[in-house]
Formats: sequence, structure tokens, C-alpha cells
Amino acid sequence: MASTSSPDARARLGQDSKSKEDLELASAYVSDAQYNRNIFFDTSPQAVRLYLHYNRRLPRVLLYFFILLDLSLAACEEPAVVPLPPWATMLAELLCLHVFALRLVHYAKVIPRDKFWKDPKNICMIAILALTLLDMIIYGALHAAGCYALRWSRVLRPLLLVNVTEGRQLRRAFRSIRNALPQILSVFLLFIFSILIFSLMALKLFNKRGLKTSDGAPYFSNYADAVFDLYVLVTTANSPDVMMPAYDASSAFAVFFIVYILVNTFIFMSVFLAVVFNNYKKYLKEEVRQLVRAKRHKMARAFAVLQERPEDGGEPAVSRASWNRLVRLVQPDISHAHTQLLWSVSDERNRGAIDKMAFVQLADLLNIQVMTLKSRPHPLGRLCPAFYRSAPSRLLCRWVQHRAFAVAYDIIIVINAVFIGLDEDRPAIGNSEWAFLALYLLEILLKLYVIEPRGFFAAHNFWNWFDTVIVVCALIATIINTALKSSGGYTSRQILDIVFILRVLRLIRVVDSINRFRTIMNTLIRIGPAILTFGQLILVVYYVFAVAGMELFKGKVKFYEDAGDPAAGDCGNPLLRGSAFARLGYCKNNFNNVVNAFVLLVQLTVVNQWHVLSSGFAAVTHKSARIYFVLFHITVVIIIINIFVAFVLEAFFLEYSLDKSDLHTELEKKIEELQLGVAQEAAEDNLVNAMETSDHEQPADQSESSKPKLMFKIASKRYRTVDALLQRLFEVDLEQEDVDADADANADANADPRDANANIANPSFSAA
Amino acid sequence: MASTSSPDARARLGQDSKSKEDLELASAYVSDAQYNRNIFFDTSPQAVRLYLHYNRRLPRVLLYFFILLDLSLAACEEPAVVPLPPWATMLAELLCLHVFALRLVHYAKVIPRDKFWKDPKNICMIAILALTLLDMIIYGALHAAGCYALRWSRVLRPLLLVNVTEGRQLRRAFRSIRNALPQILSVFLLFIFSILIFSLMALKLFNKRGLKTSDGAPYFSNYADAVFDLYVLVTTANSPDVMMPAYDASSAFAVFFIVYILVNTFIFMSVFLAVVFNNYKKYLKEEVRQLVRAKRHKMARAFAVLQERPEDGGEPAVSRASWNRLVRLVQPDISHAHTQLLWSVSDERNRGAIDKMAFVQLADLLNIQVMTLKSRPHPLGRLCPAFYRSAPSRLLCRWVQHRAFAVAYDIIIVINAVFIGLDEDRPAIGNSEWAFLALYLLEILLKLYVIEPRGFFAAHNFWNWFDTVIVVCALIATIINTALKSSGGYTSRQILDIVFILRVLRLIRVVDSINRFRTIMNTLIRIGPAILTFGQLILVVYYVFAVAGMELFKGKVKFYEDAGDPAAGDCGNPLLRGSAFARLGYCKNNFNNVVNAFVLLVQLTVVNQWHVLSSGFAAVTHKSARIYFVLFHITVVIIIINIFVAFVLEAFFLEYSLDKSDLHTELEKKIEELQLGVAQEAAEDNLVNAMETSDHEQPADQSESSKPKLMFKIASKRYRTVDALLQRLFEVDLEQEDVDADADANADANADPRDANANIANPSFSAA
Repeated sequence: MASTSSPDARARLGQDSKSKEDLELASAYVSDAQYNRNIFFDTSPQAVRLYLHYNRRLPRVLLYFFILLDLSLAACEEPAVVPLPPWATMLAELLCLHVFALRLVHYAKVIPRDKFWKDPKNICMIAILALTLLDMIIYGALHAAGCYALRWSRVLRPLLLVNVTEGRQLRRAFRSIRNALPQILSVFLLFIFSILIFSLMALKLFNKRGLKTSDGAPYFSNYADAVFDLYVLVTTANSPDVMMPAYDASSAFAVFFIVYILVNTFIFMSVFLAVVFNNYKKYLKEEVRQLVRAKRHKMARAFAVLQERPEDGGEPAVSRASWNRLVRLVQPDISHAHTQLLWSVSDERNRGAIDKMAFVQLADLLNIQVMTLKSRPHPLGRLCPAFYRSAPSRLLCRWVQHRAFAVAYDIIIVINAVFIGLDEDRPAIGNSEWAFLALYLLEILLKLYVIEPRGFFAAHNFWNWFDTVIVVCALIATIINTALKSSGGYTSRQILDIVFILRVLRLIRVVDSINRFRTIMNTLIRIGPAILTFGQLILVVYYVFAVAGMELFKGKVKFYEDAGDPAAGDCGNPLLRGSAFARLGYCKNNFNNVVNAFVLLVQLTVVNQWHVLSSGFAAVTHKSARIYFVLFHITVVIIIINIFVAFVLEAFFLEYSLDKSDLHTELEKKIEELQLGVAQEAAEDNLVNAMETSDHEQPADQSESSKPKLMFKIASKRYRTVDALLQRLFEVDLEQEDVDADADANADANADPRDANANIANPSFSAA
Repeated sequence: MASTSSPDARARLGQDSKSKEDLELASAYVSDAQYNRNIFFDTSPQAVRLYLHYNRRLPRVLLYFFILLDLSLAACEEPAVVPLPPWATMLAELLCLHVFALRLVHYAKVIPRDKFWKDPKNICMIAILALTLLDMIIYGALHAAGCYALRWSRVLRPLLLVNVTEGRQLRRAFRSIRNALPQILSVFLLFIFSILIFSLMALKLFNKRGLKTSDGAPYFSNYADAVFDLYVLVTTANSPDVMMPAYDASSAFAVFFIVYILVNTFIFMSVFLAVVFNNYKKYLKEEVRQLVRAKRHKMARAFAVLQERPEDGGEPAVSRASWNRLVRLVQPDISHAHTQLLWSVSDERNRGAIDKMAFVQLADLLNIQVMTLKSRPHPLGRLCPAFYRSAPSRLLCRWVQHRAFAVAYDIIIVINAVFIGLDEDRPAIGNSEWAFLALYLLEILLKLYVIEPRGFFAAHNFWNWFDTVIVVCALIATIINTALKSSGGYTSRQILDIVFILRVLRLIRVVDSINRFRTIMNTLIRIGPAILTFGQLILVVYYVFAVAGMELFKGKVKFYEDAGDPAAGDCGNPLLRGSAFARLGYCKNNFNNVVNAFVLLVQLTVVNQWHVLSSGFAAVTHKSARIYFVLFHITVVIIIINIFVAFVLEAFFLEYSLDKSDLHTELEKKIEELQLGVAQEAAEDNLVNAMETSDHEQPADQSESSKPKLMFKIASKRYRTVDALLQRLFEVDLEQEDVDADADANADANADPRDANANIANPSFSAA
């Protein structure tokens, strides 16, 4: 690994003309700052080039594809949804392991060797790969010998998601959970103590009374059952059943259960949320603070690489030429106009070069998605201007853009909803679907007539895309359905289902017309991407529990498609005869394949009836099987769901606490200053402008001459996530620290910027 | 009503000698400031004297007694727990009405007439009284004529709690709910829209498939049922049952339900919490800010009344003589030492008079509960000093105070827990109870030997009281039980139950020995009093729903003590035959008396199985009965429980965000400065010192000579509530505003302080 830097080469080239290597190094820093990557890459030119390759989109997409492939192998392994022979799945897994190993080797070539071996995530990756390989060999040997073999390494698979370089967000989530654990543990122990005390009391009060549950089972007959029953009561799943026998015996016993529920369900569960929320906030803020600091430092390094010292001994600065080359290297698809805009924002005083303070902003500026809206003339206006600019045509355009047009279509949607609700077997109503489809199509065509198509289908126009996709799909599905029906009288249920779903989805659009809903919707949509991190977190935990559950409980409970089958009554297991599990028809809630296991885990997450499920599986195996279900409850419901709630709360509070003025970035101000911006409606939502109705589109046909040909519009979804908001909040705090850090960076820069990399204060990374 | 002030009388007396009237006026202001009362009382001497009577403890206690009596009449009215003839309950209610009316007349005499009629809570009170009287007359007439009559005014009773002058906290809670409503409504409408859309989709997908639920009922057969089923799914009460038929038909349908639960249960419920929490915080802070401001103004008024202008034209000040008389008037039971301490805190420079800034603190200072701990010698030491100070006695004292003594008793408690868990029918274990009781008694006696008894039983020593009460009660109950058993072999279940409960409660003490638990416990205990406000809030809502529920559903479902009764199988109502309600044995969950109704409402609050309960009552009346249950769910679970969670969260966050230094008040600092304070352990909890174990007691036998005879200790429970914490937080913000307000107050004071009352910026009060 070539970890030596090349100061000689750079010295020969001279400080003022920036070499390709310098630009690449600077672009690596800027790109890392832009995407909040914290990688101590080696600064030799070869390593930097390798590093730039490492960060390209294709290898990352491939990596995630192979992780997904590896994870989805569970569907084909015993117990399988689609059974494949073991050699096939193992071959596929071997391929995945190769890809992961390759990626790891690439990473090892990019960063200094000592850094590589100090990083727990790399050690974890190597351990996962080695253990998986070992398991495959053992399994292969045992399988060949005809012995019973267990693929235990499958529980390690989801850890890949956590330990790949890109799993930053996920590692952060796990870290914040780990940091909150000691405090959660205190409350949890007190909570368990409370349950134990109440159980003892319940045992003493009810044991000797000879009460029976509604199933005729003994009531609080031993301590372990009492603890389990009362733990279930905390989750409210067996309320009020667990109380009824005692309450029937005497009304006074209701007091016991009411006190229990008040203390354990209401107070302790709120305290859990409080502790989780508080720790989540605390560590999140600390991590974001470190991220902001690391970003500043990286930009300072990039500046140190690119800076040129003017002849007159003034402040070091970056020339426009270097800056242009850098930006094009960092973001190759950037438009010329956009680059010009960014430069004009950075170089406010038009000096032809920018100083450090202006340069450091670049990472944030690049994160703001600016669209260059060229106010193109409508194609029809170009093709037959006489017709398009005629009075009737102009009148039509005015109509379509009128508020009444939108209201009319909202009314049509409501009428459509009523028609959907009515029985579609009556031919009049069945045919009305064609009318509504025609109306919706007409709406889209009219809007396309008025609005320039590329503007209409711009990436940020969520509702335009939504409408068009839904209507076109519904049209196709309806045609196929009608064709099938008329040809042989046969109707495919699947296609009909799709038609129904599409029809109903169309109704959602009405929400966007109502202002009070739009704000909430936009907040929800904004939270969306971050919920994906929670999706991964849940996936990791679910996968581990699903694989463990399949090994423990596969084949114990069977589902029979034919309800008349005599075995269907007890789910194919005589031990379940007469149990609540079989009586309620929960046979399909089993661990016989990974899909069923996931659905079962969702049901456990929702909590209700989890005691019936756990008792069912305890009945077919052993009482201790309940431990699996209680563990799942503690992990997912008490910890992860609370983190999720904490996250939603925090996102909403940030939304409320920041008003519009805080969010006006430099760039936005500049755009306004240059009067290039598109007029935005004041009544609009206060955070996300990204999702707009087509009503706000810039009509291209009017007064073209008076408007500039080039317009910018900010559609900065990414910049306005919770993280970004927090980062902005902390940037104020960091101003002072930053000045000190700058002094250091300058000192380093005079020596050699390439080696100063190690000084960057990064958050410590570790595996989950 | 005499609302004219008497400047002439005061002018005759002269400004420097303060009349009794002035002192009473000032004490009324100070007392109002101390207890955060906001009453625009009339400032004439007669009215002030009446006002002071109005605020005495006895009439307030009597008022609450009669409110409770009025509320508890529901237990004796039809449908009754203890049936009484209608004339008896109506006579009692008439008595209550008289008391309320008297209290209202008293209030009317205290405040100016125009203020009285402008205050909505007075109008509400009058309306409640008038309507109740009207209802009683109508009911009496109809009853006498033998017609069907309804006591509809009973739902108004809980509103008395809200509208009495003392219901400040409750009114505040209702105000914060009302203020949050518009925002909650937006989210709620979107949430309902989402349920409607999903229901339409479910209807289209599942209606025509001919699926059946596990009860054999049709599955998503009409839109109203679909909406209800999916609303129930939001509360998770019918998960996974509502999903199973579709899931059995095709695994793909699980996706529909998972998306539904994710959107509606997880996301929307979190958003509800976020909106409620955010609004709660916002309005709470606004109200507390106004309270702090009003408090300052009131103190400024009191100062203006009492101030004396020195001859040399310096700053106006309050002399020590006036101050002493004022304090004794405000708090008659204050000790001389305490008064001295407060004065020395206020008059820091020993000038013999205090200026306005120092005077304004008085309300806060009075709220700090300072105990004067006289380090009395142990009575035994006085009676037989030779014995008590002998070497063995001193050794015993050292033992008892040693850490090992506490640990030994913790171990005894754990062993006791094991014995309790074992079967008490075996004589060895039954007799062990005596040994444990003896051990616990010994512990208390030993501690009493070491610690001065009045110190041991000081009001703030929660755990000492707890121990003693539990052990003594257990001793008495065990003796009674044994006596009953040995006399006739008869054992009273009730007494045995009490013995069991007391035995188990004893175990709780172990929590206090573990440091990590003590902090959480203290926070919970600190939240306790404020939870009582929520208790009232819940009581109001429950009462209204209970009375309404009794009118709607009384007698529809019957509970038979004897399970063998043929009517018990269907709760005495053939309409329930075969329903889940009857099968699960929910017959006692009925509205046949107010106790049963309250227990049922608790079950609805816990949410689980509420759909079974609501379907049961819908079956015996009409489908629209579900509206009652859905309304209850929206009111209690979505709004009130979320406010409760928000409150617990906020209390915990305040606990975390304020460290000890913030809480060191002037008084605490002064006590430390004067070196009068009791040494407090550093390892103690950081907020509440009020609840301490006896280990922290001041041992009275050691080095008595070296310590002062008088000690102060701060046991400021009230001062350290959430409200008080918030008030302290805002006091910093208010410093500036206060200065301006002071200028006004001075200007007013020069004119006539009595009429300036109207300027106080109070939060607007209104009825719920």
C-alpha cells in the first residue's frame, strides 16, 4: 500500500498551477464533506484516485444489490418459500462473499494500513466473511455426510448492512441506542422489580381463591405464570381478560389492576419514552456537532491544497479556474449556469478569487439542489404559433390555470369516490369508470397544453408525476381487464385488484388541494428518507429474529389452504387442539418461511395478541419459548419503537421551532438578490417547496420577453432533512471553535496539507 | 357591595405608620403571589378582610368535601350501587347546591361587581346551579306523576371541579387542551381521510372474495363496518384477527395491512403525540410566563402599600417592623427563627429595611419549606445519661448507623420475599412471618434508639413513615388473623388479603437502598402531585361519560354472581348469545352502576378489546352505540393520554436539563453561608431532597457541643415542582420586562396603590 505522499512532485510543479493530483485530492475532501463521509483515506495520488473510484455510484449500488441478494437467500433456503438445492444458494452466497471481500480489499487499498486495522467495522466485516465461509464448509461437509446441519451464520447477514462503509446512518442509530442503554437499563430494572412485586401480590391474593379464567384454566396458579400474565398486561394485550375472574369475584380487586396499569403501562412506558427520547436527542446532537466540525475541517484541508498565495502577500485564496475545475470534478453533471450561480454566491465582492470562509461553504452550496429552469417556449407555440397564440387558445390557458379548474377537479374526485364506493356490478357504474378516466386524462392533456412538458414533468413535481403514472396505469389495467372480460368472460382477480387500488389512490390527490393538510403531508414526506434508516434498523433486528425463529419453530405449526382439512383445526399439531391460537385461526402465523416469519414479527410489533402467539409456540415446543417473544418485545417495542417515536417528535419540533427565515440560505438570498428566482406563493408551506402542485408552475406562454431566459429554483430536499437542520443549528455554535481550527489548518497547510488528514476530529466509528 | 377605596382614612393616619388595613391588603397580595392566585379582589378594607376569610383552609376543604359528596351521589342514584330513595339524594344535592351558592356569594362580595359578571367561570357556576335546580324540579314533578324522568343535569356535576375558584390547575389543563385543538383537528382530519381511503381500498379488495372471519361473519362486507374495523386496527385492538382471513387467502394482502399499520398506527399516532406535546409546551410556557409576571406585579402592589419613604428622599423601603407583621399575617404558624432567617436573606446589607427588589422575593421565599431542626438530645440520653452514653450503647449506635446494618436488612427483605413466595400453608413458613415481623420491629426500635424520635418521624422522612405504618399495620392484621384462626378455625379472607398486601408492600423499601433507582423514584414521586391534576381531568371526563353511559346502557347487560345460572351465558340478554362479549365473560363490564361504569371506562382507556365491548353494547342497543365508544377513545386516548405522556416527558426533560446549581436558591445559599445547614450527602439525588432515608438523619448523640443548637433544612417539595422549575426558567427572561413594570408600579403607587389592581396582567380565565 503506497501511503507516502509526494511533496517533491508538487514542489516541482510549483504552488500556483494546481496539478490534477491536487484537484483530485481536493475534490475527494469536498465530496466527503458534502456527503458527510468520514474516511481517513491515504493522500497519495494513486490512493486518492482509487478512493474516488471507491465512492462512485455503480460499485455502491452493486454492493447493496449483493447485500440484498444475500439477505433474500433466506427465501430459498430451508425452510423456503421457493426451495432451491443447498448448492445453488451456497453458490450465490459465495458470489456475494466475493463481492464483499473485493469491496473490502478496495477499501484497504484506499486507507492507511494501521487505520484499516483499528476500525472495528472492518474487523467485523472480516469476521462475518470468515465465519460465514466456515459455516458453509461445515454445513457442506455435514450435509454431504447426511447429518443434521444448521446454517447458523445466517444471523450474521444483516450485520453486513451495518458494517459496510456506507452504513453510516445505521451505525449512528445503533450507537445512539447503545449509548442510551445504561439509562434504559436502570428504568427497566425498576420496571421489572415493580412487575415482580405486583406478581407476588397477585399470587397471594388470587392463588388460593380457586378462580378460573374464561378458558377454565387456573388463575394465577404459580409465580412464573403470574409474572408472564402481568408482563403481558403491561403491553395491554390481555386486558381486560386477565382481570375478569378477579373482578367477577369482587369489584374491589379492580383496584389492584387499575393501580398496576397506571404504574406500569402508563407511567413506566412514558418514562421509557422519556429516557429514550432524551438520550436520543443528546447523542444525536453530539454526533451532528462532530459531523459539522469534521466537515469544516475537510473543507479547510481542501482549501489548503488548492490555495494560492497572492504576490503581494495577502490572504491565501482559491482562483476561479481551480474552483471551476474542482466543482466539475466533484459534480460532473453540473450545468454551466449552476456553476456560475455558485461562484457568484461565493465570490460576493467579485474579486476573481475566494477566501477560506467563502470556500468552506462550497460543500453546503453543492448540497442545495438548484434547478435551472429555462423558460422555454411551449413546443406548440413554436410549431404553430398562430394557433397557440390565438384568442381562444389563450382563453383556454387562462381557464386551466384558474383556481376554479382545480376546484372542479377536486369535486370530480369526490364524486368519483362515491362511485367507487357503490357496487361496480351495476353496468352504469361500471361504465362510469371510463368517464372518470377520460376526465383525468383530459386534465393531464390540458395541463400539458398550457405548461411546457419538460417543466410539467420536472423531477420535483411530485403530484404531476403521481397523477400521470396513476392515470396511465389505471387506463392500461382497465383496458386489459375489459379485454379479458369481453374475450372469454374471464376476469383476473389480480388485475382487478390493481385497478381498484389505482382508482382509490387517485383520490389521495385531493389532500394536496387543502392547505392545512399540505403542511402536515410535507413534513411527513420530509421525514420519509430518514424513516428509511429506521427501516434498515428494523430489517436488521427482524432478520436476526426471523432466522432464529425459523430455526427454533419451523414446521411446528402448519397452515392448510383447505379449511375443510381435518388437520386445519389444530394447525397440524395435536398439541394446539383447543388452544386460543388454533381457535382464532392463527395457523398461518408461523415460522415456516421467511415471509411468514416477517409477517408474524410485524404482528408482534403491533403487540396485540402476542401472548396468544407466544403461548401457541410455547405449547408446541416448551414454555421457555416465551423468552424469544419477550426478548423481541423488549428489543423492538420498548427500544426501537420508542426511538422511532422520539425521532418523529424531534422532527416535528424542529419543524415548529424553525421558521422560514432561518432556512433562507445564502444561496436563496443571492437568487432573490439577483432577481432570478421564481416567484413563490406566500401561502405555501414553510419548509418543503419540493413538492408542489402544478398550479404553481411557471406558465411559459405569457410575457416571455419581459422575463429572463434562465431561472433558478431551489428544490433542496436533501438539505432540509432533520440532520441538515440540526447541522445548521450547530453551525452557529461552532463559529468560534472554527476560527481556532482554521488557525491550525493554516499552520498545517504551510507544512504539508496531505499529512494533516489525521487531525480531523471524526466521530469514533464502531460496529453495532 | 362596597367597592370604594378609602384614601381619606389612610391620609388621616399618615403614610409612615402602617394601618391594620394596609397590612391586610398587603398580606392578601403576598398570599396571592405565593399561591399563584389570580383574583381581582376589591381593595376596600371590608372586602379585603372577607377575601382573607375566603382563602382560609376550612371553607376550601368544606367546598371540596361537598363537591365530592355531590359527585358520589351517583353511587346512590338509579342505577345505584347502594340504592337510596330519590328524595334522599335530592336532599343531599340541594344541600351541596346551597354550599356552592354560599361560596359564590362570598366570592361575589369579594370582587368588584363588573369583574364578577365578566368572569366566565362565575357564569358557568351560576348556570350549573340553575340548571341543576331546574332539572331537580322537573325530575321531581315527573317522578311524582309517575312518568319516565331523566336526571340529565348529572353530567354537569364534574364541571363544578373546573369552575370553582380553586380549580385553577384544572382550568389551565383544559385551556391547554382547547388551545391545542385546532392543530390536533388538522392532523385528525388527515388521519380520518387516511382511514377512509384505506377502508375504500379494503372494501374493493376483500368484499367480493367471499371471505369469512374466524367467527364466520362476512369480511369487509360494507363500508361502515370496514371503517370501524380499520379504526379499531389503529388502536391495535383487533390485530391480527382483522388481517387473518385476507392473509390466509393470499400472503400479498399482508402488505396492505402492514402499510396501514405503519401509516396510521405508528406515524399518525406519533404525530398526534408530537402535536399535543408541542402545543402543551407552548401554552404551558406562555401561561407560566404570565403567572410569573402577575406574581411580580402583586408583590409590587404589596410593596407600594407598605413602603415608607425615608426623610432624606432616598429609595422607598419596607421597615423590619412592617415586614414582620406582614409575614406573621400571611403565615401565622411561622416560627420566630424562620422569620429571622428570611429577614437575614432579604436584608443582606443589614440596613434594617428592604428595598423593592428584595421585597419581591418574599413570595418565593415563603414557598420554600424550611424546617428548623433543633438538634435536641435523645430523650434516653436525658433520662439516663450514664447508660445511654456508656461504651456498649455507643457501639450499638455506631452499628445501627453503619452501612452494613442497612445491607443486612436489605438481605432480610430479599429472604422474606422468597418466604412470601413459598406456600404459607406449611407451618414452618407460616410461623416465619412472626420472625420477620419481629425483625422489622427490632429495626424500627433500634433506629428510634439511635435517632431522636421527633427527627425520625419528621414529615419529610417518607421511608420511615412508610416502614412504621406498614409494619405496625401488618402486626395488627396478623394478630387479628391468628386470633380468628385459633378461636374458631375461621379465617377472614379480607384480613388475610390485607396481611398479604402489607407483607409484599414491605419489600418495596429495598428500592430506596439502590442509588440508581432512587433518582428515578424521586422523579416519579415529584411528578406525583401534578399527576393529581390529571387525575381530576380524568375524573371530569370519566364522570361525564359514565353518567351518559349509564343513561344509555343501564340494565342492558347483567352480571350473575352464580356462573351456573342459565342467563349467565348470555349476560341475561339473548341478543348477546354467541357473541365475543358473552363468550369472553365480560358480563360485569356494564353500566349498571357507577363503579362498574368507571371500571369499564378504565378498560376502554387501556384500549385492548374495546371493540368487543363496543360491539357488545351495540348488539344490545343499536349499531350507533359505537359512536359513544369511538368518542371516548378520541377524547381520552388520543387527547388526554397524550397530554399525560407529554407532561411526563416534559417533567423528565426538565429534570435532566437543570442541574443542581440552577436550583440553589438564594435561601439555600444563605443557609450555607451562615453555616447553619445540615450537611447533605453529595451522592444524593439531584432534585428532591424531601424523601430521604433515615441513613441521612442527623445523629443527635455525637459531638453535640460543636454544633449549633438550631439548624435549618430545606424540604421544598412544592417549590421544586415542574411549574416552579418553569417559573424559575422564565424569571430570567422577565428581568427586563420587570424593570419596566416596576416603573409603572411606582407611578401607580404614588397615586393610589389600591386602585392599581386592575392593571395586573393576568392570564384570561375561562370555563372549560
